[in-house]
Amino acid sequence: MADRASDVVAGPAGGEGGAAVVEPEGRPFGGSTAPAELDPSGPDATGRAVLAELAAALDPDRILTDPDTVRPYVHDEAEWAAHGTPLCVVRARSTAEVAATVAACARHRIPVVPRGAGTGLSGGANAVDGCVLLSTERMTAIREVSVGERLAVVEPGVVNDDLRAACAEQGLWYPPDPASAPWSTIGGNVATNAGGLCCVKYGVTRDYVLALEVVTAAGEVVRVGRRTAKGVAGYDLAGLMVGSEGTLGVITEITVKLRPARPDAPRTVVGFFESLADCGAAVAAVTEQGLQPSVFELVDRECLAAVNAWRHAGLPESAAALLLARTDLPEPAAGAEADAILAAFTAHGATEAMASTDETESEALFDARRMAYPALEQLGMGMLTEDVCVPRTRMASMLARIEEISHERGVRIATVAHAGDGNLHPLMLTPHDDPAARDRTRAAFDEIIAAALEHGGTVTGEHGVGLLKRDGMERELGPGVLAMQRAVKAALDPDGILNPGKAV
Amino acid sequence: MADRASDVVAGPAGGEGGAAVVEPEGRPFGGSTAPAELDPSGPDATGRAVLAELAAALDPDRILTDPDTVRPYVHDEAEWAAHGTPLCVVRARSTAEVAATVAACARHRIPVVPRGAGTGLSGGANAVDGCVLLSTERMTAIREVSVGERLAVVEPGVVNDDLRAACAEQGLWYPPDPASAPWSTIGGNVATNAGGLCCVKYGVTRDYVLALEVVTAAGEVVRVGRRTAKGVAGYDLAGLMVGSEGTLGVITEITVKLRPARPDAPRTVVGFFESLADCGAAVAAVTEQGLQPSVFELVDRECLAAVNAWRHAGLPESAAALLLARTDLPEPAAGAEADAILAAFTAHGATEAMASTDETESEALFDARRMAYPALEQLGMGMLTEDVCVPRTRMASMLARIEEISHERGVRIATVAHAGDGNLHPLMLTPHDDPAARDRTRAAFDEIIAAALEHGGTVTGEHGVGLLKRDGMERELGPGVLAMQRAVKAALDPDGILNPGKAV
Repeated sequence: MADRASDVVAGPAGGEGGAAVVEPEGRPFGGSTAPAELDPSGPDATGRAVLAELAAALDPDRILTDPDTVRPYVHDEAEWAAHGTPLCVVRARSTAEVAATVAACARHRIPVVPRGAGTGLSGGANAVDGCVLLSTERMTAIREVSVGERLAVVEPGVVNDDLRAACAEQGLWYPPDPASAPWSTIGGNVATNAGGLCCVKYGVTRDYVLALEVVTAAGEVVRVGRRTAKGVAGYDLAGLMVGSEGTLGVITEITVKLRPARPDAPRTVVGFFESLADCGAAVAAVTEQGLQPSVFELVDRECLAAVNAWRHAGLPESAAALLLARTDLPEPAAGAEADAILAAFTAHGATEAMASTDETESEALFDARRMAYPALEQLGMGMLTEDVCVPRTRMASMLARIEEISHERGVRIATVAHAGDGNLHPLMLTPHDDPAARDRTRAAFDEIIAAALEHGGTVTGEHGVGLLKRDGMERELGPGVLAMQRAVKAALDPDGILNPGKAV
Repeated sequence: MADRASDVVAGPAGGEGGAAVVEPEGRPFGGSTAPAELDPSGPDATGRAVLAELAAALDPDRILTDPDTVRPYVHDEAEWAAHGTPLCVVRARSTAEVAATVAACARHRIPVVPRGAGTGLSGGANAVDGCVLLSTERMTAIREVSVGERLAVVEPGVVNDDLRAACAEQGLWYPPDPASAPWSTIGGNVATNAGGLCCVKYGVTRDYVLALEVVTAAGEVVRVGRRTAKGVAGYDLAGLMVGSEGTLGVITEITVKLRPARPDAPRTVVGFFESLADCGAAVAAVTEQGLQPSVFELVDRECLAAVNAWRHAGLPESAAALLLARTDLPEPAAGAEADAILAAFTAHGATEAMASTDETESEALFDARRMAYPALEQLGMGMLTEDVCVPRTRMASMLARIEEISHERGVRIATVAHAGDGNLHPLMLTPHDDPAARDRTRAAFDEIIAAALEHGGTVTGEHGVGLLKRDGMERELGPGVLAMQRAVKAALDPDGILNPGKAV
């Protein structure tokens, strides 16, 4: 994103850079502060020792120390999240290389920051000073897609869409579909427990992880989980790894369960609502009637205006929000479910509502959702992506509160939401090079987090804690649960070398 | 079960019994050895101190020390699993009472063995010497069933079927359906991550747990998980608690997600197969064709013979196994799926196969499965229930191996299986009062576990580790993962007071 291009990413000078291990500073936002100063004398003795061990253990092309090649790796896509200066980047190609890297770091207590494609939105993959950035993006083998077992075994660097395509060839389907699916990796998806549009009916990444190969904080290779459909032998360590953001181990292989491919193209139902309350009532009605849309999204007035401005789409400017639902039941049940959703929309005040009758129409009706992000990007502003989730029945109230915060703080906020899940993404638009606007955005960001907690929600529905949500998480969980989180972290990473300062 | 009635359950004498805390002995089978001798002098000073604190904190009716009232609590339904002698039973009625009990035990490092209805099949709820047996069976409030949020909040003592009935009244459905559903409690279901018939399409208990209130090993009350549909704030401690068999905390409230009730009665398809290989091929064909039966069971020749003997059911005695599948798709898709399953059965050698055309027929076709357990119980033998799970495509091979073990060891083994999951329950039938037969059964039990591991499976698919599967679990997980399990246990229960000697 444009704003970040102006960051001065201070890579290690001439491959000799790096800094001593420092404690992460705990400041979530760092874009407006200068990155950590490099020590002009280069890495200290510990850093030099680790680099020497890595050089002895790995092929030279695995290790990046040149600032220009290191630069793309130092942060993820989180607007303004702080990042430090790494000792080097290791682009591992095998479990053995990951294990060798972690073992070298463990011996010297150097931080390891694992990363996939770097598409995260919370700063979870951002470098901390003096760390080894351990990228698994080059571990891209799809080792198995089994029709008989309905599972796939992949290396962590496999891109989500590539796995989905390989499954589709076998008549199988890997449901988790984060918006980043064309670029993000399964390793990153697992590390953050990625969600997406399908969650409302088919669940999140955690619901599909059967087994993991993991390199522990000591550099040992272990396998957790199982290949069988069921199993209760011991604690669910595979589930514990999912969403742990690289703080408990480095994932080197993933076994996911799959579903049969869905035969029918979905039907799409859309409805425009003049008030958020009507919109919330329509969502509630769909839920209460036992309907199960396979996608159930909301696009708010700011998004609609941006789509109109970009594409002259002629969407009703008076609408407070647009609801889009899809049904993927086998026909004729899909037709009946689409009709029932349409009736619920109309009964709860939709001013315009329609259901697709064929695939072309279905895709056309979904266009407003598909165009929301690119239309907002056309505005040429910084975009901080919020991610909160509230109980479904509180969504309309939460949306109203977001509009209030927008007005009170003078921050333009466009919201898309996974309406059926109560998972909202307020996109906070900020002019570049306007420190005052930036401060207002940060204040609004904090107020939205507070509002989500007041609504009985969570500070992160699917993007992860990373750096941006650490304070919010502490408020959400409270001291007793935080102590348990930290005890688990200390049990599996006693020296605290795995992605320190993130998530917990 | 009859065999256990002959056990001498040495309850504490006159309410003054109990023993000092002893380490669990690690012997999984204990039915043929005498229970631990009571110290005739009554509880030691520590035991007396804990009893005094409990008496001060709780109403007198909460605490049982009389041997006759204690006796029903000292073990679960696991045939022959060892159990010790408790200090007392506490039947808590509230979270506060659970917390007070655990806190008193924590102060004196007395073991706490939590239990629900005691329907477990692995010995997980069995007393260890000197423990406080903490029953949550009287915490039976259904606090909330929310149509709008599609969730329920219950106390741990709510019986599974009672929750299902309460949900059904609201047009909602709680899928997990262990065979013990008429008696087992949600607390126990969560502690063991219970499965059931529905798992093949709808998942296990873990897939439905959103949030838990838990009393920690220190006696503190915490809430883990969330009420929202999604959430990634911190490690998934709720998921970690599920299946932890009371070794990480005592569950005092459970929030489960629900599904809309299914409108249609299911269709049932049955097929009899002359060979296990044909049977396995039919299961594979159903999976490979992308069909998704909502129930997919297997009943082997020994079960069929028992049903015939009991009810003169006229089932084909030449069949190696019967497959039963159900489909719960909306009509007419259900008819099409039933036809496809029937065609797969016939194409793979079913000698007799049929699909129901109405609800009465559907229920009648399912009778052979329903009658399998009671028919075996009519045989009047001890019944040790195995529970292993193998990859789906290895099920036929595993069944053949079980038949071999049965013949080699001279042990009568009748198997029911959740065929679609590869989850087998070989039921090992042993004459009472025949120590030699008992030894053969134990040998066969171990060989089945070994065979499951050789087939790439797990030593427990849904019943839990408890006492009976500890050795098997160690072989399955290996030292690296075991060390992680123990580290997690030590992190959350540093003094090891929660259900010591079980699961990990």
